[in-house]
Amino acid sequence: MVNERMQRLSQSLKDSDFDALALIPGPNLTYLTGLSFHLFERPVVVLLAADRKPLFILPELEKAKAETCDLDADIFPYGEDHATWKEAFAGGAKAFGLDEMMVAVEPLRIRLMELQMLQGAAPGARFESGEQILAGLRANKSSDEITAMRQAVWVAEQALEETLELIQLGMTERDLASELTLQLLRAGSDPELPFAPIVASGPNSAVPHATPTSRQLRAGELLLLDWGATVRGYVSDLTRTLAVGPVDPELVEIHQIVQNANQAARDAVGPGGTCGDVDAAARGVIEAAGYGDFFVHRTGHGLGLEAHEPPFIRQGNTQLLEPGMAFTIEPGIYLEGRGGVRIEDDMVVTEDGGESLSSYRRELVTLE
Amino acid sequence: MVNERMQRLSQSLKDSDFDALALIPGPNLTYLTGLSFHLFERPVVVLLAADRKPLFILPELEKAKAETCDLDADIFPYGEDHATWKEAFAGGAKAFGLDEMMVAVEPLRIRLMELQMLQGAAPGARFESGEQILAGLRANKSSDEITAMRQAVWVAEQALEETLELIQLGMTERDLASELTLQLLRAGSDPELPFAPIVASGPNSAVPHATPTSRQLRAGELLLLDWGATVRGYVSDLTRTLAVGPVDPELVEIHQIVQNANQAARDAVGPGGTCGDVDAAARGVIEAAGYGDFFVHRTGHGLGLEAHEPPFIRQGNTQLLEPGMAFTIEPGIYLEGRGGVRIEDDMVVTEDGGESLSSYRRELVTLE
Repeated sequence: MVNERMQRLSQSLKDSDFDALALIPGPNLTYLTGLSFHLFERPVVVLLAADRKPLFILPELEKAKAETCDLDADIFPYGEDHATWKEAFAGGAKAFGLDEMMVAVEPLRIRLMELQMLQGAAPGARFESGEQILAGLRANKSSDEITAMRQAVWVAEQALEETLELIQLGMTERDLASELTLQLLRAGSDPELPFAPIVASGPNSAVPHATPTSRQLRAGELLLLDWGATVRGYVSDLTRTLAVGPVDPELVEIHQIVQNANQAARDAVGPGGTCGDVDAAARGVIEAAGYGDFFVHRTGHGLGLEAHEPPFIRQGNTQLLEPGMAFTIEPGIYLEGRGGVRIEDDMVVTEDGGESLSSYRRELVTLE
Repeated sequence: MVNERMQRLSQSLKDSDFDALALIPGPNLTYLTGLSFHLFERPVVVLLAADRKPLFILPELEKAKAETCDLDADIFPYGEDHATWKEAFAGGAKAFGLDEMMVAVEPLRIRLMELQMLQGAAPGARFESGEQILAGLRANKSSDEITAMRQAVWVAEQALEETLELIQLGMTERDLASELTLQLLRAGSDPELPFAPIVASGPNSAVPHATPTSRQLRAGELLLLDWGATVRGYVSDLTRTLAVGPVDPELVEIHQIVQNANQAARDAVGPGGTCGDVDAAARGVIEAAGYGDFFVHRTGHGLGLEAHEPPFIRQGNTQLLEPGMAFTIEPGIYLEGRGGVRIEDDMVVTEDGGESLSSYRRELVTLE
């Protein structure tokens, strides 16, 4: 698997102005090497190029992990003494022939520290954003990847079912978020969730990126849950908005509008359409209902090894949809001080349309 | 609180060659502004300087959060359209007078993306590692911060107690890690744990950064647990190594040696000593017992808003210990293929020595 991916990378590099790609811990490194490292204060860098052995520069402590890589790689480890860092970088850069290369780096990941270590070891090399190479690398998911995402959705839906059984008036948002986390792990999520669940009640549901607070659940309010699971590194990301007992008719109405927008966007997914088309489908429904000013974010974002990755489903994005692309559809309406609604599903583009990996009921559920 | 911290920062800037500090989401930004943002694909940058209003550049979506800042700040928001990003950065840089400044940045955090956005908006500015300003900023914890860390330790110890009740032969490392996570949240951890718990059994315990697997717990093996909690953003980080039934006498022996090394390092903590002294105390015990080659990492790392921060307790580090500094003490011995032992406590430097925030028993516990 990693060899097929390396071949695709090699071809991308040959088709570009870049000679090599430098990666630090994160999803690209995991995708291409099969290995997962944490991003800490000690640099871990992998150098990749067409027709050249991959090269790892990392702490001695991580050498054993690098040796398990399916790719035949050179390893330049360093010790606890900081003087040995420079030696490992210099040795690695020299062995790789980095000095005269044009090197693609990850603009959303590589830090000043790694940039300086690499530049110091290869003063003649140039390091520039490899977005053109990276954006497409992981975009078209294989059936194995889709299977993992389908399982991550199943785990998340299962966890919601279990959690809803436990909801009671007076519970705090934090209590409920803890229970949801627990149920995600019990249902089979990997230990590292894609993000800590959002539980937002009443006026807090009108804050798109709310953090769970000690606010207690009360009757007559909306309750927004935004949560996801990880399976074999692949994530799900869902949102449902519930009513805690009967709520104000306008809140019921905006829920119906968001549900219609979610449906319209899902129906708009298919090969040949653009990301912007899908956004327009959701936005059109909400604007037609007079709530356009209260849909303050894009319709969705790509999903895979990361909870936020390309493609981005936003206004004016002319990127074409292709089979295997996976992303969220998550329109929302937020009425400040009163409440907000968001309904989020995880979609995959198929040969002739789109499939929602998630099927949990989208109608307004009123908790009794 | 944030105003006192801003005053200290202003003084550090005046004492340095830097005119300003540019921060992106993470602990430094949280420490200085009281606000917490996620690091995503959309840039969030805060510019800070002595005698100048703080300035936020961020997505429209995050504007409401920025407005809750206790500091009186200017806000330059941008929209979903990428063209508006450049406008917001250009407008913010101009209002702040960034163009001729020497700007400190976070070497372990700022990414190529933010560096390029800032450089594009202020071509005359220079951006360099602000390590000298940042390293000391959060090092000396206040009593409020120590209180939060003490609670994070309490939550972690409580969670271990609850988890040990549930351990059974045949459970997988992952099952046990899930239970430990659940108990951390129930005991009162913030939703975002400092890291996913490590549960490593048998030979896996000899891998310092092991990830929980589907390996089942078996009698006659070591079981290593490395876990922590978060309280009001502050973290704990503990490790204990248990025996599942009676184990090989050499494993019992290395446990005793590591326990002695842990004790020696804790005893070596006090103002006026160096980080290297503390490392040497632990390392000396392990070397004297003939296991020096199997203690493959530093003795500890700083702890606070991050699970890894300065000061680093490593060989040769001449940094002086000062009251309020907090860090782990975590010597270990790792016998490849057989098993490893690590015993980790969280220490604070006091006026006349050191205090371990953690007190969970360090003697070898044998699970029946």
